Amino acid sequence: MAHLLSTSCSLNFSSGCRSYTKPLIQDSLVFPTSLTFQTSRTPFGRLLLHRGRSQSTCTVHATTLSPSREAPKEPSYCINESSGGASKSQRVMVIGGDGYCGWATALHLSKKGYEVAIVDSLVRRLFDHQLGLDSLTPISSIHDRIRCWKSLTGKSIELYIGDVCDFEFLSEAFKSFEPDSVVHFGEQRSAPYSMIDRSRAVFTQQNNVMGTLNVLFAIKEYREECHLVKLGTMGEYGTPNIDIEEGYITITHNGRTDTLPYPKQASSFYHLSKVHDSNNIAFTCKAWGIRATDLNQGVVYGVRTDETEMHEELCNRFDYDGVFGTALNRFCVQAAVGHPLTVYGKGGQTRGYLDIRDTVQCVEIAIANPAKAGEFRVFNQFTEQFSVNELAALVTKAGEKLGLDVQTTSVPNPRVEAEEHYYNAKHTKLIELGLKPHLLSDSLLDSLLNFTIKYKDRVDTKQIMPSVSWRKMGAKPRTVTA
Amino acid sequence: MAHLLSTSCSLNFSSGCRSYTKPLIQDSLVFPTSLTFQTSRTPFGRLLLHRGRSQSTCTVHATTLSPSREAPKEPSYCINESSGGASKSQRVMVIGGDGYCGWATALHLSKKGYEVAIVDSLVRRLFDHQLGLDSLTPISSIHDRIRCWKSLTGKSIELYIGDVCDFEFLSEAFKSFEPDSVVHFGEQRSAPYSMIDRSRAVFTQQNNVMGTLNVLFAIKEYREECHLVKLGTMGEYGTPNIDIEEGYITITHNGRTDTLPYPKQASSFYHLSKVHDSNNIAFTCKAWGIRATDLNQGVVYGVRTDETEMHEELCNRFDYDGVFGTALNRFCVQAAVGHPLTVYGKGGQTRGYLDIRDTVQCVEIAIANPAKAGEFRVFNQFTEQFSVNELAALVTKAGEKLGLDVQTTSVPNPRVEAEEHYYNAKHTKLIELGLKPHLLSDSLLDSLLNFTIKYKDRVDTKQIMPSVSWRKMGAKPRTVTA
Repeated sequence: MAHLLSTSCSLNFSSGCRSYTKPLIQDSLVFPTSLTFQTSRTPFGRLLLHRGRSQSTCTVHATTLSPSREAPKEPSYCINESSGGASKSQRVMVIGGDGYCGWATALHLSKKGYEVAIVDSLVRRLFDHQLGLDSLTPISSIHDRIRCWKSLTGKSIELYIGDVCDFEFLSEAFKSFEPDSVVHFGEQRSAPYSMIDRSRAVFTQQNNVMGTLNVLFAIKEYREECHLVKLGTMGEYGTPNIDIEEGYITITHNGRTDTLPYPKQASSFYHLSKVHDSNNIAFTCKAWGIRATDLNQGVVYGVRTDETEMHEELCNRFDYDGVFGTALNRFCVQAAVGHPLTVYGKGGQTRGYLDIRDTVQCVEIAIANPAKAGEFRVFNQFTEQFSVNELAALVTKAGEKLGLDVQTTSVPNPRVEAEEHYYNAKHTKLIELGLKPHLLSDSLLDSLLNFTIKYKDRVDTKQIMPSVSWRKMGAKPRTVTA
Repeated sequence: MAHLLSTSCSLNFSSGCRSYTKPLIQDSLVFPTSLTFQTSRTPFGRLLLHRGRSQSTCTVHATTLSPSREAPKEPSYCINESSGGASKSQRVMVIGGDGYCGWATALHLSKKGYEVAIVDSLVRRLFDHQLGLDSLTPISSIHDRIRCWKSLTGKSIELYIGDVCDFEFLSEAFKSFEPDSVVHFGEQRSAPYSMIDRSRAVFTQQNNVMGTLNVLFAIKEYREECHLVKLGTMGEYGTPNIDIEEGYITITHNGRTDTLPYPKQASSFYHLSKVHDSNNIAFTCKAWGIRATDLNQGVVYGVRTDETEMHEELCNRFDYDGVFGTALNRFCVQAAVGHPLTVYGKGGQTRGYLDIRDTVQCVEIAIANPAKAGEFRVFNQFTEQFSVNELAALVTKAGEKLGLDVQTTSVPNPRVEAEEHYYNAKHTKLIELGLKPHLLSDSLLDSLLNFTIKYKDRVDTKQIMPSVSWRKMGAKPRTVTA
């Protein structure tokens, strides 16, 4: 897909949030909405944005001409201080910073004292429009989100709207922001989406692999010391019949021994795109001396983080649909609306899971403890393992405590995967660097269920069932209705 | 890169070769050049081709309307008969059939009784134009090659000119030709090319990975029983410190055992593209029941096969330049023109090698013994291992016998690779299926050296030295002069 907006925009502003009728916190504010768009290109005049009650005036000009940015900045890594925050101002570019994990991460890093820029094409919002899906939670525009954050905390987040597959755009964003770290969430991240039809399969691999290649070239060209923190997935490993290690495995074979990349067995075009990325990144670490951390993340659940719950306008997206929804979040929505929990097949599928509050913590730990030059480091980023049946049982128990009648039903598995298998994945490296996990407790499940109950009037039950079949996907373009 | 010709053309004709002033064989013929282009689209009239002495009249019409092709054909696999040829007429689509290995393979299969179609965008010829390179041997157009083959043997080869990255084109080729087997050589196949600059790196991965995805979707959509024979490379494995197995390795770890994909450590964006392909294909075998054979080929040397030496117009390309040339072929050219043999670095780099006559034999063996439905089979396709220093010594010795003064020089290694390492790769599966190797003997080297001496006036010595650096490649577009 071509980039969606050819102009590189960075957003600076001085004011913030719109008031909501139901603010999550007491101190929501109403304030003016003047803002400034910056671009790395020549000025092209004034834009007028009309939205809601007010009119925003946008002036577009070149950030690269800013006097404060003339000399290239040296990276300013701070060694881990028990995740206490950046010791010096470190510049972190969050690619995909408007998404579920990206938005929460951008705010967390900003709160911790990092200088943050969000790079995002906003294409995730387009997917919802195209597939007729919507987040359980109402989410504000990225512009309003950033404005609100500034008003609440005084902290600016720069915004570059464009596609990392467009190298010209990415180059300008790099030259303008000069990141010390890049956190790369900017990929199509749904396995079912990648299995809808040929064009989505090709889009997913092209978008993810070429976007990551561009990020690697941008680092080499403009910021050689920059640390790449790349979001991978535990799904890259598949479900081998031996323990899963963190990225590498030492093999003794015919009397000789070597430590090699852990064999991967991905099970969707999306998961495969992440395997391709990992291989490309590993090569550039070796050939060019890139420093990279691959975070093989498990399934993320939850929605609130300390930062996103500061104001309703900062609220994160919450996907429960058959394409973008993940197991535990979807089960909570199903319980809230009285829909049976949909277990795919036998339900013995076991994976690593983590709270979104741990996602943001893990990324910060990786940034604060960067990989060495030439090092390709792999962390398995999850905190607990569950089978689908175990999750269904936990949600059933938590629902009963709240007076909900929770049923479970087995539906034909739309995926091709083992439904009963051995699974034991290591995940000690982030713990060793200071991760304090938020484990899935009864109280968290209560809170998550209450959250979904709060928004249950927004649930579209047509979105809940699986709509994409691994085996039946075809070459012809398909429009999926939720 | 977009497809280069949006029309799906299949070529049928009744006549053949132009005469050469120096025919390789005695029975070269002069004959008329009328030919018919067929396309799967609606007729769009007549094309007039002007070339050389004669005028060719081309009529374009839809092959899918051919009465003889109305019913879908069932695959007609023939079990191996010691490579004695196809027992029934089996239809083989050779993607990349105008290239070095592809052309030799297409002729070999045609000679053996298979119905052959070549699918090719001809972009390999464009690369030569763009980089200022040329084959040592003069090569005819694909149209003349096929015409010549028909005149010599009476056998037709269909021709579809287009890009497999264009799924509409590929679909029409599949529906028109209805292959029982697809041999997929249609990829950008040079490691140095993929390391010239960002745009070539991205092109290589996009072209190779998306092209292969399209082939997989075409098989699923139109020919589910079709056997995919995909050319991989031994370079996917890198140089691990343990024995290299054929595709899979059985690992015992913490008291449990599983057989998993052999860990890959590719060392260029090209080699990585092949790793990505292998992973994608393996997944579709599991998810869709695709039958596939991945031929991890070593470095191919030589030029003549029984078929290409039948007439000069059938002559294969022979690359000796720093981008597309491979070690042994390049050394022979260097010896022929009195250029020192260029050993990269220490010269301990060891790889698997094979004669091009074994390439065509191996592909036929794979076709004649197809993978089962859902099977992803990996064969290591080479016959002998050599280090670069060993090859240089062999060429030096053979040159001296012919009275050549052969010198060797070490040049800085443009690649990032181990220059002294353990290397022991298994390669028994093709032998077990009947491969009779042509090993690198003194007589073969004599013949290869004599061949390069014959064409030495065509050598452009500026093309010989390495022109692409793994470490120095950058994001900016680069024009390489040979």
